[in-house]
Amino acid sequence: MAGVRPKSGPTMHDVAAAAGVSQATVSLVLNSAPGSRFSEETRRRVRDAVDQLGYRTNAHAKVLREGVAGMVGFIGDSVATSPFAGAIIEGAQERAWEDGLLLLTVNTGGDKKLEAASLDTMLSYKVAGVVYAAMYHRLLDVPSALAGVPSVVLNSQDRAGHLPSVAPDEVKGGYTATRRLLEAGHSRVGLINIESLESGLPAAVGRHEGYQRALEEAGLKVDPSLVRFGQGGEEDGYRYAMELLTAATPPTAIFCANDRTAWGAYQAASDLRLSIPEDLSIVGFDNQTTVAPHLRPGLTTLELPFVAMGRRAVDLLLQGAEPDGRVELMECPLIERKSVTHPKEIP
Amino acid sequence: MAGVRPKSGPTMHDVAAAAGVSQATVSLVLNSAPGSRFSEETRRRVRDAVDQLGYRTNAHAKVLREGVAGMVGFIGDSVATSPFAGAIIEGAQERAWEDGLLLLTVNTGGDKKLEAASLDTMLSYKVAGVVYAAMYHRLLDVPSALAGVPSVVLNSQDRAGHLPSVAPDEVKGGYTATRRLLEAGHSRVGLINIESLESGLPAAVGRHEGYQRALEEAGLKVDPSLVRFGQGGEEDGYRYAMELLTAATPPTAIFCANDRTAWGAYQAASDLRLSIPEDLSIVGFDNQTTVAPHLRPGLTTLELPFVAMGRRAVDLLLQGAEPDGRVELMECPLIERKSVTHPKEIP
Repeated sequence: MAGVRPKSGPTMHDVAAAAGVSQATVSLVLNSAPGSRFSEETRRRVRDAVDQLGYRTNAHAKVLREGVAGMVGFIGDSVATSPFAGAIIEGAQERAWEDGLLLLTVNTGGDKKLEAASLDTMLSYKVAGVVYAAMYHRLLDVPSALAGVPSVVLNSQDRAGHLPSVAPDEVKGGYTATRRLLEAGHSRVGLINIESLESGLPAAVGRHEGYQRALEEAGLKVDPSLVRFGQGGEEDGYRYAMELLTAATPPTAIFCANDRTAWGAYQAASDLRLSIPEDLSIVGFDNQTTVAPHLRPGLTTLELPFVAMGRRAVDLLLQGAEPDGRVELMECPLIERKSVTHPKEIP
Repeated sequence: MAGVRPKSGPTMHDVAAAAGVSQATVSLVLNSAPGSRFSEETRRRVRDAVDQLGYRTNAHAKVLREGVAGMVGFIGDSVATSPFAGAIIEGAQERAWEDGLLLLTVNTGGDKKLEAASLDTMLSYKVAGVVYAAMYHRLLDVPSALAGVPSVVLNSQDRAGHLPSVAPDEVKGGYTATRRLLEAGHSRVGLINIESLESGLPAAVGRHEGYQRALEEAGLKVDPSLVRFGQGGEEDGYRYAMELLTAATPPTAIFCANDRTAWGAYQAASDLRLSIPEDLSIVGFDNQTTVAPHLRPGLTTLELPFVAMGRRAVDLLLQGAEPDGRVELMECPLIERKSVTHPKEIP
């Protein structure tokens, strides 16, 4: 498609000028370029210019001329109905539509019969491929029918190691969160995890590993008295923050392995009349938009890259999605707000 | 389908026995019966029994035999990616699947070209009908192509008054919220609304009207000094609750017209060292699952009936969705938690 000029309306040149980038960049951003090649900022500028100018690729022109788009199948357990993972659909659909494809989304709620019927139907409608998505990061057994069509596992990993997977980089996220606190000057950094390590939950295991790595890199030992394992809710955040903060030598900072846990830690700090961040620094994880920006002070946290992951999964599909078992881990950006500062000086 | 026995597996009789209802009820619940006819509890029992027993209707058997399901189109502005409205898709898909239909979901993000292409594609795939859904309740201009297929406007209303619409009953919700506070013994009940009345936003106008009705029915006059208009965020909830609570004669209860506003009011109460509910009772609206159950104390609020609305929209489609301009308003249930009690006695 690159370089071919639509018969009317704005050209790729116009988009490049409006976005302040080269035509080659516009072409690459709009045509399957992997997420890592351009910054999210560049991609966003291009997409904004496309929207503002009403630029249409040849794929769009074809769809509008013929009145029928091809489809990409999207099977999710509960993605569409979970409060946050829905953004993954936004990314997948946005990317599919750049190639003139619609997303045929089925939310199975875990119903295997519905899943089987959906897959059969998708195959009979000749979808270009199937994204098999999970609401939270785990190891999945994928349906065997996926072998018959390009398929990508999204926000999880294929337990059998056949299909390519796109998932968040939990280890790097945990490392970044902990390092943020260490760089602010803290040396007693607690961790309230969201599951036991025995659970095997990638979010719990990976974020924990990142925490350890950051401490070790800073020449610190992991102190088990500063680590707790909750279940990811406010109640556990409250309970374990209380335990940590009322101990003989409390931490000056806590990495809460999700935002809900962080919210509970805020409540514990409030009950103990501790100010955040002056008396206690906190970093969360997930950047839940209904919680993290609205805590007082706003929560510094890591964002799950839902939109980027959705885009990347469709990228891989459109490239054929060879069943090479690759796992592409995508970075969770640090979202700075107001919950981290340097520790008070020791009196 | 009613009464016809699938060739193998559990029968409708088995479902009825497991759910503790009659076969006729199972049949009606599974076949287009309007939401009002049975309680949500009855419907849930039937659906749970269907799931547990693995009961399949003839429609499912046909899909599984032939490998291809029909489709219902679902066009949403941002429904799939909004934190809560996604449940509307769950309801719509669940109902469609009871008749062996899949939901072809497109999230347009307001892109009119994508919307047009999606509609063309849906029509070319011969969808049984189209649900045209909005992320929040408003008056919509619907695309003219919807005239060519059974269509229902969901979580909004057709401005032109042609298509049938399914939307929450905002007035009754506002009435129920306010009445809950009046029945607890409060007579000075404040309101922090989420938009001006001039905005025309059904949630703001309707909830306000319900507030007025409940007061008038109780023989009370609306006191404008107890009413504020914010924009639906915590900041406004905090600011206006502060104003109301530091006035010469503060309210003993506040109806916050959404949960975010209520969260802000909680923060104001905390700063003023007022206990909820002992010093101040609060009722919210929306039942946002990431906020309302997790406030301390849990927030008593009204729930937007997303699942039921999604189901009802597909019901109407499958009944042909005559363009009679009807607006079906669905009840928002009161969710009791811990934020309401009687007022302290006047000293």
